[in-house]
Amino acid sequence: MISETQTVQFSSIALECGVTLTPVEVTYETYGELNAAKNNAILIVHAFSGDAHAAGISKDTGQTGWWDNMIGPGKAFDTDKYFILSSNVLGGCRGSTGPSSINPETGCPYAMDFPVITIGDMVRLQKMLVDHLGIPRLLAVAGGSMGGMQVLEWAVAYPDRVAAAIPIATTARHSAQQIAFNEVGRQAIMADPDWCGGNYYGKTRPARGLAVARMVGHITYMSDDSMREKFGRRLRGKNEFGFDFSVDFEVESYLRYRGSQFVDRFDANSYLYITKAMDYFDLTAGHASLGAALEVAKARFLVISFSSDWLYPSYQSLETVRALRSRNRDVAYCELPSNYGHDAFLADVAEETDLIRGFLASTYRSLS
Amino acid sequence: MISETQTVQFSSIALECGVTLTPVEVTYETYGELNAAKNNAILIVHAFSGDAHAAGISKDTGQTGWWDNMIGPGKAFDTDKYFILSSNVLGGCRGSTGPSSINPETGCPYAMDFPVITIGDMVRLQKMLVDHLGIPRLLAVAGGSMGGMQVLEWAVAYPDRVAAAIPIATTARHSAQQIAFNEVGRQAIMADPDWCGGNYYGKTRPARGLAVARMVGHITYMSDDSMREKFGRRLRGKNEFGFDFSVDFEVESYLRYRGSQFVDRFDANSYLYITKAMDYFDLTAGHASLGAALEVAKARFLVISFSSDWLYPSYQSLETVRALRSRNRDVAYCELPSNYGHDAFLADVAEETDLIRGFLASTYRSLS
Repeated sequence: MISETQTVQFSSIALECGVTLTPVEVTYETYGELNAAKNNAILIVHAFSGDAHAAGISKDTGQTGWWDNMIGPGKAFDTDKYFILSSNVLGGCRGSTGPSSINPETGCPYAMDFPVITIGDMVRLQKMLVDHLGIPRLLAVAGGSMGGMQVLEWAVAYPDRVAAAIPIATTARHSAQQIAFNEVGRQAIMADPDWCGGNYYGKTRPARGLAVARMVGHITYMSDDSMREKFGRRLRGKNEFGFDFSVDFEVESYLRYRGSQFVDRFDANSYLYITKAMDYFDLTAGHASLGAALEVAKARFLVISFSSDWLYPSYQSLETVRALRSRNRDVAYCELPSNYGHDAFLADVAEETDLIRGFLASTYRSLS
Repeated sequence: MISETQTVQFSSIALECGVTLTPVEVTYETYGELNAAKNNAILIVHAFSGDAHAAGISKDTGQTGWWDNMIGPGKAFDTDKYFILSSNVLGGCRGSTGPSSINPETGCPYAMDFPVITIGDMVRLQKMLVDHLGIPRLLAVAGGSMGGMQVLEWAVAYPDRVAAAIPIATTARHSAQQIAFNEVGRQAIMADPDWCGGNYYGKTRPARGLAVARMVGHITYMSDDSMREKFGRRLRGKNEFGFDFSVDFEVESYLRYRGSQFVDRFDANSYLYITKAMDYFDLTAGHASLGAALEVAKARFLVISFSSDWLYPSYQSLETVRALRSRNRDVAYCELPSNYGHDAFLADVAEETDLIRGFLASTYRSLS
């Protein structure tokens, strides 16, 4: 399956912080065909460092999409049956408007003049895209991690536009620990002199700070067990300690590689804005409880978490499940056994596939 | 209790890496009195960022020792009964010889010319100090985290010199995850241009990199629960999000404060050397199993871990306990319930005190 990225521009979007962004672009990919009834559309929403290229082989880069093992003919999100839509988030750096985009008022990149965005803003832009494509109601919105936050936001912001919601390995609000890990990443970037208050475009990018931030992230995405299985205490290309500060352990080599690789594909300012949006996200804000916040939701829910995920632990998914049940909402919950930590939602897809396939099929039947 | 730091110099120490360090100094404090039989001496060994000032009020700085709630008259390590000895580790920056010490060959600080040191080297220097003080056999060696590694090393390196070993919240070897967290800290320091390959003495210190490294550390020292209780999602001095990148959440403020505070009292190169020593530490190296490695130990063991410690999880202490039991060694194990995460060994001392007091008393009786 060859996939192609498209971009649509809208004249403006009003943001939660009070600023109106003019204009705004959103980059997206689609897989499969929208049916005549226009009731087979599924929106896939990506995690922190994801992008619109969720499935297939990119026509431009030749790379495989980040959830290709879940999206395609006969897969969990079956492109023979459904029309799949995936877009890059607002604030990102992979096509949609973000801090690296040109500010029309200055002709230069926004950098830190980009307005602070929220998960609600990301979802509002997705809604504009869904309207633009003429989709009256989504069969489902699905995503893991920060994608799951967008799923929850969709369910309460546009309850009549979502038949089913699949929040995976996510939370209705970040804990202090989750905020803390994000803050360390932000501090690592802002501590890099090359960050220059965000004005590094066309100059040396804050590659060292961004790499350190990413290394912290990677540790939190894996479980203690999966790191042990993958690396243990194995030494890198030698039989004994080097007794120096070059790479000794394979896990060090892996982290350095993933850190430096990330620098080539991600914008440091987007790192700041998107992690801040995650930290600000709090579905309960302005409500007496999470149940009260979810009161307006009309979708069926399938909530999934993974046993070894310590970054978004199962208790956070269970809070959402209990809140939905307290309002007598239609909710199924599964904690899937996995060794992969938070990465499980991307990596450990066998049971996830079965669950989602069945849930989508029954939702689709109920609409027909 | 007023405590005073002393320093003793030895002509040289031969290190595991093959280098001989000439001369070498060790800074220490003592509390209580060595008895006539010289059998009431307890060596306290500190964790990563600790120092010789374990108890009392420092005569020099006015500061309270890092384990003052455990050491003193009537406390767990009762200075009315025992002679307590505490020294700064080799490679440190609080008196003992380390990378910030003057290299006599050049007249300048060693910086990264300092030889790579190991937990075994730290313990060898402590042994020289114990010999110097004329202590034939320690009643006990006790310490948490990296201190616990030194305790285990003492038990196998000098089995006839230790009557009791109290390794707390520690491991016989770092897991891939523990190495990974240390490596992120090292990378954060080395990514700071002010690090200058370690040659920053007398110039601007790599404060930003060191602060980021410390922030990562602090997250790992606390539990998810204790962070929630201490900070939750409380905002800092305002009622609403700032929609900017200044401090919003109290947890951010706390981390930034602890990061910057650390910079004033710790040397970045010591951070590199000491974390590397922890990562290299592997009691099983050269043995068929941990049990085989502990075969030579003669001490009684009291192994303590804490329920919410996810940095040094209880399963690691249990590996040591099982290995000791497999060799029919005298070992007691307790997992103490605590909400404080890894910090529990410093913070949550009520049950820890009872356990250690009883264990020391029965060991002391058995010697008399």
